[in-house]
Amino acid sequence: MLTLYYARDTISLATHIVLEEVGAAYKTVRVDFGKTEQRSADYMKINPKARVPALVTERGVLTETPAMLVYVAQQFGRPELALMDDPFGFAEVQAINAYFCSGLHINHSHRMRGPRWVDGNDSAAIAAMQKHIPVSVGANYDLIEREMLKGPWVMGEHYTICDPYLFTLAQWLEQDGVDPKRIPKVMDHRRRMSERATVKKAIAQQFAE
Amino acid sequence: MLTLYYARDTISLATHIVLEEVGAAYKTVRVDFGKTEQRSADYMKINPKARVPALVTERGVLTETPAMLVYVAQQFGRPELALMDDPFGFAEVQAINAYFCSGLHINHSHRMRGPRWVDGNDSAAIAAMQKHIPVSVGANYDLIEREMLKGPWVMGEHYTICDPYLFTLAQWLEQDGVDPKRIPKVMDHRRRMSERATVKKAIAQQFAE
Repeated sequence: MLTLYYARDTISLATHIVLEEVGAAYKTVRVDFGKTEQRSADYMKINPKARVPALVTERGVLTETPAMLVYVAQQFGRPELALMDDPFGFAEVQAINAYFCSGLHINHSHRMRGPRWVDGNDSAAIAAMQKHIPVSVGANYDLIEREMLKGPWVMGEHYTICDPYLFTLAQWLEQDGVDPKRIPKVMDHRRRMSERATVKKAIAQQFAE
Repeated sequence: MLTLYYARDTISLATHIVLEEVGAAYKTVRVDFGKTEQRSADYMKINPKARVPALVTERGVLTETPAMLVYVAQQFGRPELALMDDPFGFAEVQAINAYFCSGLHINHSHRMRGPRWVDGNDSAAIAAMQKHIPVSVGANYDLIEREMLKGPWVMGEHYTICDPYLFTLAQWLEQDGVDPKRIPKVMDHRRRMSERATVKKAIAQQFAE
C-alpha cells in the first residue's frame, strides 16, 4: 500500500491523478501548509526537503513529480503512460516533464516563494520577482501552446503522464497573470482533463480531507 | 549518428560524458554563448528554447538533461546506468536528477541569468538574487552531502547517470560561494570523476573546438 503525502492546490495533484489512472491501492495524508506542517519534525523525517508530494512505498520514500509519475506508470504495469518502451518517445515525455518541473513550475514559484532566491526581508526584490511572473510564466505557456501540446493530448493521440502534469500546473495560470485567450489549446486541454473521472475523483478526495 | 549541440562550461557536459560512457557514435557542435549563437535563427530552429544542450537524433531533437541522460542509457542498451529495470531504483535516480535540474541548477542560474525572473533593468533585484546564491546553492549541497550522495557514487556502489550530472554541476560551487570544506563527500566525488577517461575525453573535446 502506497501513501501519498499531499497538500491542496499544489503539484501533488498530478501524481494523485496518475495513482487513480493506474488503479493503484493507496491512501492519502494531507499536509496542511496553513499550519506549516511540511516543516514539522515528523514530516521532515519523511521528506527532508520539506515539500510535497512524497510517496511512501515499501522500499522507501520517493519525491519529485517527474520521478513519481514515471514510477507509478512503471510499477503498476502501465509503461505506455510514459511511452517507456520507446527510448525516443520516453525522452520526449521526460523532456516535457523536465520543462514543466524546472521551467514552468519554478517560474510560477517566484510569485509565492520569493525567499528561496533572495533574502526574505528584501521586499523590493520579492515584489520585483512577483511583477515578472506574467512575463516568465507567459513565455512558458506560449512555448507549450506553440511547440509542445500536440493535441488532443500533450503527446498527441496518446494520453500520457504529461497530461495530468500540465493540467495541475494550468490551475494557476490566471493567478499568474497569463491571459487564457492567448493559449486556446492549453485551455481546451484543461477543460477536457477536468471532465475525466479519475481527475474528478482525485480532486474530490483532496477537498474531503 | 547523433549530434550534440553544447556550450563550454554548461550542463551539456553531463550528456557528453554519458555519450562517451556508452560508446555512442556522435559528433559535437559548439554553440558559442559569447556570440549569443544560442539565439540565432539557425539554432532556434533546432531548440526553440535557445538553450543547450540539444541532441539531434534520426527521429528528432531532444532537450533537457534529465531526459537526455536516460535516453542515451536506454537507447544504447545500458539501462543499468539509470537502474531502469527496477522501478524504485529508477525513481530514486530520477528524483535526484530532478533535484539537480529544478533545484541546484536553477538556484545556480540566479547568479548569471537574473533577467529570467525579474526585469532586466532592475539591477537591485538582480544583485539581490546574486547575493543569495551562497545560501540557496549552499543548502542544496548540504542536502546532497547529507541525504543523497551515498558513496562512492551518488547511488552507492552503482555508477549511474547521476554521477556525471553532479560532477558537471559541482564545477560551479566555488564560484557560487559554497565552501568546499563543508561538503567533503561531494569534493571527493568530483575528484574521482575527474580521473575517469570518459570525463577527460569529453572535456578535452569541448576545449579543442
